[in-house]
Amino acid sequence: MEKQNIPDIVIERLPVYLQALNQLLREGQAVVSSAELGHLVDVSAAQIRKDLSYFGGFGKQGSGYNVISLIDNLRAILHLNQIWPVVIIGVGNLGQALLRYQGFARKGFEIVLACDNNPDLVGTTISGLKISDVRNLAEDLRLLNIRVAILTVPAECAQNVTDMLVSYGIKAILNYAPLVLKVPESVHVINIDPVVKLQTLTYYLETED
Amino acid sequence: MEKQNIPDIVIERLPVYLQALNQLLREGQAVVSSAELGHLVDVSAAQIRKDLSYFGGFGKQGSGYNVISLIDNLRAILHLNQIWPVVIIGVGNLGQALLRYQGFARKGFEIVLACDNNPDLVGTTISGLKISDVRNLAEDLRLLNIRVAILTVPAECAQNVTDMLVSYGIKAILNYAPLVLKVPESVHVINIDPVVKLQTLTYYLETED
Repeated sequence: MEKQNIPDIVIERLPVYLQALNQLLREGQAVVSSAELGHLVDVSAAQIRKDLSYFGGFGKQGSGYNVISLIDNLRAILHLNQIWPVVIIGVGNLGQALLRYQGFARKGFEIVLACDNNPDLVGTTISGLKISDVRNLAEDLRLLNIRVAILTVPAECAQNVTDMLVSYGIKAILNYAPLVLKVPESVHVINIDPVVKLQTLTYYLETED
Repeated sequence: MEKQNIPDIVIERLPVYLQALNQLLREGQAVVSSAELGHLVDVSAAQIRKDLSYFGGFGKQGSGYNVISLIDNLRAILHLNQIWPVVIIGVGNLGQALLRYQGFARKGFEIVLACDNNPDLVGTTISGLKISDVRNLAEDLRLLNIRVAILTVPAECAQNVTDMLVSYGIKAILNYAPLVLKVPESVHVINIDPVVKLQTLTYYLETED
């Protein structure tokens, strides 16, 4: 598969399609048209067909997509037929909320390591996981074979921590810190700063002037 | 300004440019080329120029963008020259973490209302804000003139709560619940489900098979 040729924005939409398809599956639906799926996720039917055509299509003209089969295909494309071990770096308010969130396990991810540099936190147990000292990070990541990190440290130390993570072999970072991280091309970062998302939303709102 | 003609994906990139520009400003940089800005945010220089051309361009050929002036323009486009009052619906772990997050205020947003249906939470104070009863939501939203909501309720009640928010005049929703919400076209939703973002990242990772 020629990954280089597929735009990132297409890849970003695939998990959204997967989420909507899982919703349809839970509601008992066996087949879905690109128009119906598009309506659910606010993407045009043509765009959905184009996105899926990068991977072979998966639908027959006029008969829609088989929901289960499309879910299986998307899971394979996104490498979700395995459980990915994940580290949370920074166990402040947000890190703790994510540790307590039950939504990861059923969807391909397991938080197997959480670490912090705060001595009051290190050694305590949150949601069944003992918080590790960030000083042991290199060894912990290697032992647990972790390549995916969730970064929930303050902005002022996020780049330093990222440099450390990259040097320890982390290849994917979900970044909650409100800044643009510098990483080598071989490392993938997605930013999940709520402020940036809110600032997108306000574009669409009427102002009072 | 013909908003209809500007793709959503362009709008989504503008706050990212703004974030990077603010970073450059803090580092004392007065002028930035589209190539340098693009390198920072992992977008091509041509794409940046194209995105900004929807709004008039803001740069002179060969001389780069004035950082402060581009920040001002982007803030105006995104309607950030005012403070937007925001409600958080659902004060569980994540809602509490967001309430304690100090990053909203300086960037155009103020959490002025947080509500829940849990009687143990209603009336308590978190980060200086008294948690309201969701039963008073209609009146609270009207009194505080709120049109932006952050949704941090469990997935199973997210659609019902959304229907309620829409009927009370909310126009923009930042949705943390792991499902695709159905809303009228006049309401804008951005999903911020960490699982969906992680599932995008794993596409790029090597698997062991």
